Amino acid sequence: MNARSDTVDIELDIEGAAEYLNLPRSRLKGLLDRRILLQNWGEYQQLFRFDKSVSKIEHGSVLYQKDGSFELIRGFPKIQRAMLLGPALENHFSKIKTVAVEEKMNGYNVRVADIGGKIVAFTRGGLVCPYSTERARHLLGRDFFDDHPDLVLCGEMAGPDNPYVPKDIYGIGSLDFFVFDIRHKGSGTPYLLHERRKLAEEYGFNQITFFGEFSLDNAPDEIASIIRELGKIQHEGVVIKDPMMKLNPIKYTCSQSNCADLRHAFKFYNDIGRDYFFSRVVREGFQSVEWNESEAELQKRCLQLGESILRPMIESIKQVRDGTRIADDVQIRVKDLGTVSTYQDYLRRLGVDAVFGEPEIVGDEYLVKIKKLNQSTNDKTESMCKGELW
Amino acid sequence: MNARSDTVDIELDIEGAAEYLNLPRSRLKGLLDRRILLQNWGEYQQLFRFDKSVSKIEHGSVLYQKDGSFELIRGFPKIQRAMLLGPALENHFSKIKTVAVEEKMNGYNVRVADIGGKIVAFTRGGLVCPYSTERARHLLGRDFFDDHPDLVLCGEMAGPDNPYVPKDIYGIGSLDFFVFDIRHKGSGTPYLLHERRKLAEEYGFNQITFFGEFSLDNAPDEIASIIRELGKIQHEGVVIKDPMMKLNPIKYTCSQSNCADLRHAFKFYNDIGRDYFFSRVVREGFQSVEWNESEAELQKRCLQLGESILRPMIESIKQVRDGTRIADDVQIRVKDLGTVSTYQDYLRRLGVDAVFGEPEIVGDEYLVKIKKLNQSTNDKTESMCKGELW
Repeated sequence: MNARSDTVDIELDIEGAAEYLNLPRSRLKGLLDRRILLQNWGEYQQLFRFDKSVSKIEHGSVLYQKDGSFELIRGFPKIQRAMLLGPALENHFSKIKTVAVEEKMNGYNVRVADIGGKIVAFTRGGLVCPYSTERARHLLGRDFFDDHPDLVLCGEMAGPDNPYVPKDIYGIGSLDFFVFDIRHKGSGTPYLLHERRKLAEEYGFNQITFFGEFSLDNAPDEIASIIRELGKIQHEGVVIKDPMMKLNPIKYTCSQSNCADLRHAFKFYNDIGRDYFFSRVVREGFQSVEWNESEAELQKRCLQLGESILRPMIESIKQVRDGTRIADDVQIRVKDLGTVSTYQDYLRRLGVDAVFGEPEIVGDEYLVKIKKLNQSTNDKTESMCKGELW
Repeated sequence: MNARSDTVDIELDIEGAAEYLNLPRSRLKGLLDRRILLQNWGEYQQLFRFDKSVSKIEHGSVLYQKDGSFELIRGFPKIQRAMLLGPALENHFSKIKTVAVEEKMNGYNVRVADIGGKIVAFTRGGLVCPYSTERARHLLGRDFFDDHPDLVLCGEMAGPDNPYVPKDIYGIGSLDFFVFDIRHKGSGTPYLLHERRKLAEEYGFNQITFFGEFSLDNAPDEIASIIRELGKIQHEGVVIKDPMMKLNPIKYTCSQSNCADLRHAFKFYNDIGRDYFFSRVVREGFQSVEWNESEAELQKRCLQLGESILRPMIESIKQVRDGTRIADDVQIRVKDLGTVSTYQDYLRRLGVDAVFGEPEIVGDEYLVKIKKLNQSTNDKTESMCKGELW
């Protein structure tokens, strides 16, 4: 019995797991010792997640035993980014004739699978998010998983009731799940693009928008024009895929989305990693070069970048100076009040400082407002206002 | 005899050094083993520098033996920055009535001292820079050091013939040394501000500009107005000091200088640390709040920030795309050609990739152009242009 009352240590069958993963037993033992292979807690304590990539097992992969044998839900592979669309398409997809273009939505990446009869939703890192799990059960139902217990549904959770990246841009009332991949447990092999869209449609699932298939010659222009249109409506960007899913997909995003990211990040300037800022700024430079911008367009881009950085930061500094703590206001909508307390516990375990409001009844659901406090930005700004030195 | 032909390992008298520094012998041994206390090479191999702060000994401090006893040149203390000038002055200088304001020049910080009869110039990190050493000997002469062998002259090397931060803004023909501090060997105790200025004047040294002494009440407005004027001529900023040098000085800089830093850094966007960008951007936010800027002023600041980031980066990307390698073009001017090869060796040891041009005779000196290659930015940009993914 573990000291923490909600966790009973389940012993991992190291020998069996090592054999299943084709890793030396000592290697597996080392992963557990170094907390790279980590056990979940509470209701899902039988799940072990990979906190880093190990051999060919992606970060975020989840290992568990079912009826004595092992199963693995592979982590969602990182999608690399094109900085210059034309050269990247030419270089990356040279072996195929056409590429398919789908929307990259701005929400959070979730894998949903049946684990021993229960539908469970995993975050990118392989954690079981209790909120996403409740929503997935509600949004997706059981049919698909009953018919295909060996499949993993990968999709974007998007909408305003999104506690990570709330967005009103999709005309979604609360939160929806948009399928962008269906993969096999164990191997992680993806469905071919059109078969995946067909299967998702059969079950009536929402899917990310499909913009078409383009020949490699036309793709740069077609995608640039899709990107410009998506930018106008503040959408994020596209993922460009080999329809046969043999080559890895690549992503490309709109300037407006980079700037929206910066606006949000600079509101909490001292809490966000420096690389987050940097990467978005560099994307702007490459896009401007590739689009061969006029002096007027460049000046507009410079102003937009500067404003995305300075305005939210200035707003936060003024707010703290005037005595208000800044916070990231998000919300969740649940069927079951139990999810609220499980989610609260989940955020606490992740080290997120969040204050939950009282649940409000909306229809047959509860809406809960959450203030995520960005301690570091609040503290730093406050200390500067008191005249401390940087 | 060491394997490297130019270095003979000089054994540090650990017992004596430990006693002199008031550190346990084992601690000192550990510092040597972990290469925190590092031996110099070549002509200055008898000097040991502290690569990190240790107890009260600053990073960049230099330890050596002279006639059997030890001497220590203390590292130049880090000067903390005011983000909000008013609150910082009030908080930091509350115990004194007036503060002195001197210019913070944009060059590089050098400490010059007599080491066993030779004038030597140290960088911030405690390395002997051969170029700065030659220039210091030429610019300062021996008189001061003969009269005051126990003093360390701290100053800014500024001007166009500056291989680190070349600036044309001071109307300097080549490179000059501007005294900003005089300190005692061993203790590091500084001269009082006015005594330091008097002593420097007696020896005819250049000094950083003195803007005056202000009562604490007037200081924020006075300094803000100095900063605005300095900004107009692209100067860097000010250091605000307790004339008695009991409280630590603090620094404050102009927006134009932040932006000039950003312009230079984004030219070499992949070679410069992310923190360098971030810190300068954050300063802009705080200054705008403190100066209570109008919508028009804020917009101007946003545009200036965006342009300082994007324009140089775009220029570099275009240059690399069109086949030219980007480089930081700097130059040095020396009396003795030997300095050129020693300096070349010095940069190589520091891992700086630099191509030296042929020396050109200018008057009684040699001008050498140096191209510092920013490998990482060149490589990254080239690979993006070839269509590789980020």
